[in-house]
Amino acid sequence: MKDFTIGNEDRAKVLIQALPYIQKFMGKTIVVKYGGNAMINEELKSAVIQDVVLMACVGIRTVLVHGGGPEIEFMLRKIGKESRFVKGLRYTDEETMEIVQMVLAGKVNKDIVSLIQQAGGQALGLCGLDGGLLQARKLRTDGEDLGLVGEIIAVRTAVLEDVLNRGYIPVVSTVAQGTEDAVGQALNINADTAAAQIAAALGAEKLILMTDVRGILKDVNDPESLLQEIRRGELDGLIKEGIVSKGMIPKVDCCRLALDAGVRKAHIIDGRIPHGLLLELFTDEGIGTQVISDANKG
Amino acid sequence: MKDFTIGNEDRAKVLIQALPYIQKFMGKTIVVKYGGNAMINEELKSAVIQDVVLMACVGIRTVLVHGGGPEIEFMLRKIGKESRFVKGLRYTDEETMEIVQMVLAGKVNKDIVSLIQQAGGQALGLCGLDGGLLQARKLRTDGEDLGLVGEIIAVRTAVLEDVLNRGYIPVVSTVAQGTEDAVGQALNINADTAAAQIAAALGAEKLILMTDVRGILKDVNDPESLLQEIRRGELDGLIKEGIVSKGMIPKVDCCRLALDAGVRKAHIIDGRIPHGLLLELFTDEGIGTQVISDANKG
Amino acid sequence: MKDFTIGNEDRAKVLIQALPYIQKFMGKTIVVKYGGNAMINEELKSAVIQDVVLMACVGIRTVLVHGGGPEIEFMLRKIGKESRFVKGLRYTDEETMEIVQMVLAGKVNKDIVSLIQQAGGQALGLCGLDGGLLQARKLRTDGEDLGLVGEIIAVRTAVLEDVLNRGYIPVVSTVAQGTEDAVGQALNINADTAAAQIAAALGAEKLILMTDVRGILKDVNDPESLLQEIRRGELDGLIKEGIVSKGMIPKVDCCRLALDAGVRKAHIIDGRIPHGLLLELFTDEGIGTQVISDANKG
Amino acid sequence: MKDFTIGNEDRAKVLIQALPYIQKFMGKTIVVKYGGNAMINEELKSAVIQDVVLMACVGIRTVLVHGGGPEIEFMLRKIGKESRFVKGLRYTDEETMEIVQMVLAGKVNKDIVSLIQQAGGQALGLCGLDGGLLQARKLRTDGEDLGLVGEIIAVRTAVLEDVLNRGYIPVVSTVAQGTEDAVGQALNINADTAAAQIAAALGAEKLILMTDVRGILKDVNDPESLLQEIRRGELDGLIKEGIVSKGMIPKVDCCRLALDAGVRKAHIIDGRIPHGLLLELFTDEGIGTQVISDANKG
Amino acid sequence: MKDFTIGNEDRAKVLIQALPYIQKFMGKTIVVKYGGNAMINEELKSAVIQDVVLMACVGIRTVLVHGGGPEIEFMLRKIGKESRFVKGLRYTDEETMEIVQMVLAGKVNKDIVSLIQQAGGQALGLCGLDGGLLQARKLRTDGEDLGLVGEIIAVRTAVLEDVLNRGYIPVVSTVAQGTEDAVGQALNINADTAAAQIAAALGAEKLILMTDVRGILKDVNDPESLLQEIRRGELDGLIKEGIVSKGMIPKVDCCRLALDAGVRKAHIIDGRIPHGLLLELFTDEGIGTQVISDANKG
Amino acid sequence: MKDFTIGNEDRAKVLIQALPYIQKFMGKTIVVKYGGNAMINEELKSAVIQDVVLMACVGIRTVLVHGGGPEIEFMLRKIGKESRFVKGLRYTDEETMEIVQMVLAGKVNKDIVSLIQQAGGQALGLCGLDGGLLQARKLRTDGEDLGLVGEIIAVRTAVLEDVLNRGYIPVVSTVAQGTEDAVGQALNINADTAAAQIAAALGAEKLILMTDVRGILKDVNDPESLLQEIRRGELDGLIKEGIVSKGMIPKVDCCRLALDAGVRKAHIIDGRIPHGLLLELFTDEGIGTQVISDANKG
Repeated sequence: MKDFTIGNEDRAKVLIQALPYIQKFMGKTIVVKYGGNAMINEELKSAVIQDVVLMACVGIRTVLVHGGGPEIEFMLRKIGKESRFVKGLRYTDEETMEIVQMVLAGKVNKDIVSLIQQAGGQALGLCGLDGGLLQARKLRTDGEDLGLVGEIIAVRTAVLEDVLNRGYIPVVSTVAQGTEDAVGQALNINADTAAAQIAAALGAEKLILMTDVRGILKDVNDPESLLQEIRRGELDGLIKEGIVSKGMIPKVDCCRLALDAGVRKAHIIDGRIPHGLLLELFTDEGIGTQVISDANKG
Repeated sequence: MKDFTIGNEDRAKVLIQALPYIQKFMGKTIVVKYGGNAMINEELKSAVIQDVVLMACVGIRTVLVHGGGPEIEFMLRKIGKESRFVKGLRYTDEETMEIVQMVLAGKVNKDIVSLIQQAGGQALGLCGLDGGLLQARKLRTDGEDLGLVGEIIAVRTAVLEDVLNRGYIPVVSTVAQGTEDAVGQALNINADTAAAQIAAALGAEKLILMTDVRGILKDVNDPESLLQEIRRGELDGLIKEGIVSKGMIPKVDCCRLALDAGVRKAHIIDGRIPHGLLLELFTDEGIGTQVISDANKG
Repeated sequence: MKDFTIGNEDRAKVLIQALPYIQKFMGKTIVVKYGGNAMINEELKSAVIQDVVLMACVGIRTVLVHGGGPEIEFMLRKIGKESRFVKGLRYTDEETMEIVQMVLAGKVNKDIVSLIQQAGGQALGLCGLDGGLLQARKLRTDGEDLGLVGEIIAVRTAVLEDVLNRGYIPVVSTVAQGTEDAVGQALNINADTAAAQIAAALGAEKLILMTDVRGILKDVNDPESLLQEIRRGELDGLIKEGIVSKGMIPKVDCCRLALDAGVRKAHIIDGRIPHGLLLELFTDEGIGTQVISDANKG
Repeated sequence: MKDFTIGNEDRAKVLIQALPYIQKFMGKTIVVKYGGNAMINEELKSAVIQDVVLMACVGIRTVLVHGGGPEIEFMLRKIGKESRFVKGLRYTDEETMEIVQMVLAGKVNKDIVSLIQQAGGQALGLCGLDGGLLQARKLRTDGEDLGLVGEIIAVRTAVLEDVLNRGYIPVVSTVAQGTEDAVGQALNINADTAAAQIAAALGAEKLILMTDVRGILKDVNDPESLLQEIRRGELDGLIKEGIVSKGMIPKVDCCRLALDAGVRKAHIIDGRIPHGLLLELFTDEGIGTQVISDANKG
Repeated sequence: MKDFTIGNEDRAKVLIQALPYIQKFMGKTIVVKYGGNAMINEELKSAVIQDVVLMACVGIRTVLVHGGGPEIEFMLRKIGKESRFVKGLRYTDEETMEIVQMVLAGKVNKDIVSLIQQAGGQALGLCGLDGGLLQARKLRTDGEDLGLVGEIIAVRTAVLEDVLNRGYIPVVSTVAQGTEDAVGQALNINADTAAAQIAAALGAEKLILMTDVRGILKDVNDPESLLQEIRRGELDGLIKEGIVSKGMIPKVDCCRLALDAGVRKAHIIDGRIPHGLLLELFTDEGIGTQVISDANKG
Repeated sequence: MKDFTIGNEDRAKVLIQALPYIQKFMGKTIVVKYGGNAMINEELKSAVIQDVVLMACVGIRTVLVHGGGPEIEFMLRKIGKESRFVKGLRYTDEETMEIVQMVLAGKVNKDIVSLIQQAGGQALGLCGLDGGLLQARKLRTDGEDLGLVGEIIAVRTAVLEDVLNRGYIPVVSTVAQGTEDAVGQALNINADTAAAQIAAALGAEKLILMTDVRGILKDVNDPESLLQEIRRGELDGLIKEGIVSKGMIPKVDCCRLALDAGVRKAHIIDGRIPHGLLLELFTDEGIGTQVISDANKG
């Protein structure tokens, strides 16, 4: 019904308005961290898949890095696993890590691959173990041992380049190969951080973090107070002023990490908006908050 | 103003609805005969250029073959050239042929190239002389000599393949290299026919003829009586019944020629509809009349 | 200690004796079905990994297809899943299929990948969903619905070729993309059959099935009665005579399928022998039973 | 008749004497500015075409940049266009520019292409609009507006490289894409200057300017006083002394521009000598005047 | 002195007259059997080297197969080796074969390579052992064992293609790898026959045999009675009539062998004429006798 | 018999122990100087050929540089050539040089090529004349003219790269192209030095010199006193102390030359040990003495 209201003239107009953006991003690499509601809600999920397939279609080298917290929770509950905490932080023991790997690399990852294939795209599901993609050591925290939680010490981009060059969309689970103090063990990596480090290592054009908020709000209670663009240099001030909320700080850190490694722009977008990726990439206004490097001119 | 009425949700929807068509035509060759009002009206012209650039952007190997009748007329009048007729048919003498070549290959062709470049595309302007693209002899008519009017005896596609493979949109003027009885002379070729023969030689996916009518109408006086799809086998009957109008027969012959050489579909579309190319390619309904081979299944 | 007994002279001799075999298999494709004890026993597992890495090193295009029955059982028990049977056959419901996919594609597969990487090889873990590798429909049995158990209708080898050409060892879980009566569902495929069909589709040089028996024995109670070589034409007779045991018939069927599709040799080897793959490939005697096509000359 | 006097022995000798020159220039880029009598006289024209085809044949990457003054004059007269002058300088209005483009890119250019093809070569006719080859702005003169006359601000060599790499001889009309103060307009560029800038941008081995004089003469009245070689550093002196005639200064400026950008040698040769290009390239003596960089050693 | 008589105009003419021949043979393969006086006389030798370098320069894929009888004789005499005859035929024992191989592959071959390199060409000296180029068995004669004289059973062209594709002129000594009844032994092959078989295996455009006669003469005493062109079908008649002299029959057999395998033309030319290769290839008249296949049209 | 004692388990072990070494040298270039007893004794020779073929098989870019002193001596004696000495040094006259070239490039070289081919490898026999590989001048000694003995002034590696890239093992005779004071003459080059300079020019991973001694011995009378590893910086001291024997100094100089040009390791190994190359490359202990650069870490 509603479709009827979009006449052919308007359809053409929309396509043509997307043209300069398509030209702009053709051949560029964009790393998307996929997570939150957009991964749970079936309609949103389907929209993300379509967006990613379209991006690949118009020549954008798209890397999809995903999380999977809720599905891991669900499985841990199913096997009756009780979480163990160390000074308030969850400890990842071997049994938990096994579930994490199974759920992320076996279930969430391959389900996304399957959806992309069904939507006519070409996808290949990787985790950090494939081709040695993510090399990590145990996360260094202040004296606490969190078990098999890791931090990336090297991204071996060769496998991503190979996969992208052959025309596939790499879908990446953030399970890493342990080294140093964890040789031979798989380690769990925070997906936002992994996405940022992959974007950095690839010299990506953009890092896009899908979240469950509008972006960075000047007034956290006023969704209309969205900050559409922030320079990297302004981040510290915004954090100090409390404008960047506590929960948002890790996301902002990921943006900073990517920008400092040469990524041109980092975006925090609202995954609850259907086709948010397309809107961000192919319209003038975009959505969410973009953080640009201080030298950035456009 | 009007743009305002297309919300972001609808924009995304339009892009996504174009996706299956983009996937379908990626890497395929489409030959477009560009002419008529769409070449005169500035707004229509600009829309065609955008369409062609977008087509190239999403991986369609687009060949643009153009006419230029009105501009030739204008120039001939300017130099005070009077047309000579042989039994009612216009005779092309050397001076006229020189003007034809200058206007087509020097003016119309390069202006289109320039517009594509300004729209962010990559174009290269060719005529049938470049790389020996179009080899022709004098047109064989019943005993009449029409001067330097030719018919194609061979399309040397190598130059088109070279240009397409390097990522350019070839823009083609239909001036051919004379052979046989016209060695060393340039010959003027009907642009519709040339487009059909180029599509045939390239094994194109589609031939699209831009005209100044809606398509083939069941009742020439009723624009709503458009025949959206015709099988190749039905053409003879439609001509006999007079449904294909006299003026439309040469276009229909071009469609037939292309289909018989393995082109999958031939389209007669209305160049007066802005972005007609996009609408034909990227929407369900398409526009105009498509002629499909009898074996065609989709 | 024992190593000491192999002098340098003997070492060199062994390497040189392997040379003609290395030359013979260089650039050829060999599909290995990995399963049974060789996947459970840590020492055997480690030996298989080394063998596969060495094979890749000397230029053999090695594809590793794995099963994972025991690990699936273990996980199903862990979540308290009770098996449902239909006329004595196990029924695979959605929850079970989810576990199958998670364990195979997320655990077993990626663990093998990790071991290959640690042994200095380059591996990439795929399942039948990646790049649409395995297209399947529900298994056609006599009137019984076994749920999400599938049979392969097409192997899209492109993704394997891409991965092999870039120098990776593809490790394959036999979870397939459902089509026809199972669109959008993942289907579980018997790993032996999948390996045979992959070998057939790739036109492999060899299919090697790792089992927990010596091979085909003339007298099932006499391990010394091993049949080292059987022609394809002899298989029916051997089955009729009962020499091919009931449990061995599905393996023999896989060999037949592969040979009939042009694979040169199919091997049933004993996975309990350490480095059985190397011994089969790089020594005169080989191990296990090889089935060769009737036209085969060596 | 005369041919008879060249015996086979002498023929072989001539070919062999050309060998070291062929070896020297193989794979090198040579930009030829074609103009003057050599473009009007049919016999000379035919000789130039043969020379260029032979050059391409022996592996020289030959770029042919042409002028076309007389043909433009002729056409302007034909349409009764009167020239408008601004302080003694001709003003190029839009109608004139249209004729310039038509004649150069449509007539002169494509006629040369056709002759090369007929001589067995492979040519492709470009102007500065194709692939955005020549980017220009309005010529900056002292306060005078000369209309659509341009100066090049960038040569986008990609299109030339693409065309040369595919084995074509690019034939170039010097109509440029307007930018800055002339966006969207075609601008007329002096062909000598364009040739020099193209040679500079390509890092050519040689720039050869075909003129209607012997070269630079020590005594303008004594054709025997030809200066065969001048170092770049001597040019200023020669101009000051009046040895470089007023009419020759723009040519000398082109040589200087090319040399300063790294072109090894620039030649001013006499286009009235048949096969002057061959004689310059493939004989010891050469013809005309060559200007070499001060660092040049051979 | 004499050079002076060839004016520049004539030089240019000669080069231009060579153009159609250069175009004709570009990218084609020509196998030259080099031997006789042209290999002994220093001046002739130097001319052949220049011809071959020029041929390679203009894109002809030139293969030079050489003999070396006199140099072998000289060396055999030097070591005091007496020839042994079997029913009037010379027997090649191991010591003789060793000398043959040394002289051909070590002296004659590498000296030619060195001369080509000094003339600015790129050459690579091969014998039939390199890359297994020539596979042979002992020559089958009527009951007589001639020792290590062989006949070719296979030409492995891969090594020639590799060398030609990398831009080298392969210079070939006709020492072959023994197989069948001569495994592991080097065998001596008649150079004319080897050249013919190499031309056949490469699908060459031409085989040119350099001899010490004018060609095939109608009247052996009248050098003016040269037969310039013979069809393959006429050969038997000419032999029967005795016009092809006894000594010429093996050469004619080589021509026949090559033509029957698809080589377009075979030439018997006079190696005593300086630059005979160039004259044959690049002039209208050519020199010597050419044998063309019956189907040949040009 | 003895073979029987190496059971399958041990065979597999040996292969697997070679794996890390194979991985380490894959794709690396290793230059082997082949000479001494290993070239005379048939069994040793056969072992070297097998080693080289195996090296190539596992992806090592192997260059074999050979000497041939004894065979040259033998031939010189055969023709009754008496050596001429200049102040105790042998003088190489033209006749001697001819024999050197014949024996090295025609006999020794091509025999090695033939053996490699028979062992299933792909080899191509080159000398310094082919592709201008070795450019040399007369050896500069203190005032003495040693005739046609040369020293390398340039290694043109292009021909080696071409041959290696196409998959052949280049076998190199050290006859060089004379330049400077020896233009057009072939010069004899010391094979050890040539190997070192080739390794240097190729940026090889290793230079291996095969000798007739165990390596560098601390006590020349005690074969057990082998120095297994020496740093480049220690060489001067060892020479001064007399530990490096007089006869060994030229070999040590070659090692130094190679290391200083960036070769990672240089080895002096005992050619009298069968399969010494394999033992050096593919076992932990290696054989002989290795000289490593001071910066070397493994």
